[in-house]
Amino acid sequence: MIQPGVLYGISLGVGDPELITLKGLRLLQQASVVAFPAGMRDKPGMAEQIVSPWLRTEQQKLPLRFPYVREESILIRAWKEAVARVWQYLKKGQDVAFVSIGDTSFYSTFTYLAQTLLQLHPQAVVQTVPGVCSPMAAAAVLGVPLTVGSQRLAILPALYCVKELEAVLEWADVAVLMKVSFVYQQVWQFLSQRQLLEASWVVERATLPNQTIYRDLRARPDLKLSYFSLLIVQCPPCQ
Amino acid sequence: MIQPGVLYGISLGVGDPELITLKGLRLLQQASVVAFPAGMRDKPGMAEQIVSPWLRTEQQKLPLRFPYVREESILIRAWKEAVARVWQYLKKGQDVAFVSIGDTSFYSTFTYLAQTLLQLHPQAVVQTVPGVCSPMAAAAVLGVPLTVGSQRLAILPALYCVKELEAVLEWADVAVLMKVSFVYQQVWQFLSQRQLLEASWVVERATLPNQTIYRDLRARPDLKLSYFSLLIVQCPPCQ
Repeated sequence: MIQPGVLYGISLGVGDPELITLKGLRLLQQASVVAFPAGMRDKPGMAEQIVSPWLRTEQQKLPLRFPYVREESILIRAWKEAVARVWQYLKKGQDVAFVSIGDTSFYSTFTYLAQTLLQLHPQAVVQTVPGVCSPMAAAAVLGVPLTVGSQRLAILPALYCVKELEAVLEWADVAVLMKVSFVYQQVWQFLSQRQLLEASWVVERATLPNQTIYRDLRARPDLKLSYFSLLIVQCPPCQ
Repeated sequence: MIQPGVLYGISLGVGDPELITLKGLRLLQQASVVAFPAGMRDKPGMAEQIVSPWLRTEQQKLPLRFPYVREESILIRAWKEAVARVWQYLKKGQDVAFVSIGDTSFYSTFTYLAQTLLQLHPQAVVQTVPGVCSPMAAAAVLGVPLTVGSQRLAILPALYCVKELEAVLEWADVAVLMKVSFVYQQVWQFLSQRQLLEASWVVERATLPNQTIYRDLRARPDLKLSYFSLLIVQCPPCQ
């Protein structure tokens, strides 16, 4: 029996292709197959764009469909289909490198692929290569620390109500709101009431050529932001 | 007048030298001076050990002393002394790469160096290269996602009382306790009462050759852990 290949989950960082780690690049380039989430409307997705400078022409490219829906039955079917396509190669002993933006353990599609693979094929081998997640990249391009000393950090993948932010800021010294574009105006109102707008930053498309940074949000109640935007807010010491 | 050199803050990742990014390595190798926190008792510190495979012999090594104390006056004096040593090179137009473990924006000594430099020499130029922080590295070596879907993440740099953990778990779905070695036994008691030990992991020295992983902490009430240990706890859905 052939030893199955390894499914690598390789973190690409958030945009700048140079933010891949040496380990990620080495394992990526050794794999015979490189998988990534397929883009929408036949345009290459973000992961495919970031990884493209590093691919060798003989590597097989494998776009996998992950629909942008919440309905679980549709998602599970998509994950199973993706696993079937990946397993075709793994079962022959070929390694597959799945690349994802940000860090592969941090709100990543890779989790669903890997977990479904291990359910359907318990003999499969999965290995994850960590990378640069968006809060770290945003802090770096802002030139401000994300956290120092004894600061407690809260990361919210998306905000469903502003009340939640209130609860988090009771406790956290620094909060990161991912995908802030959907709720920006309500968040702005809340931060304004708390006089936290001066200590807030928005970073859009960190490290990409069209990166935009907004410092001090007092004059920006209605920013129109793209999907890859996050907000960092630093709370002043409570004592 | 000579244009001052750039102070780069370069993230090394948590242990495995291959976890540096391509960008970090490029800027590191271009700098004429490589600075890092001096080790204790003349032994090389962690950052120096991680970076050593990447240094060219002609690069100037600059160990900087950052005392492990809480007294602010002593710390401020040390930061100013470190800045004076770095500025010697920067003012002549030479770049200095300061390397730090983990990510340079995440509880890093680099913050104090960069902020003190900019206070004393406002004309200085600082650039940060993000990297792999310890929560991402720990999740990767565990082979579990750190966060998925709508999970809210809390990161505590250190825990001063277990009450604080209680407040966090009211709100967070996943919590990372850094430097858990100091409070492990109390944390264990708390997690035991909440029946969260099965959903908790400890990672010691992630990605280093002597890395140790503890899964399911039920039988481990009194682990003796080293400084570079963290605990991840996943709370079951509340609804």
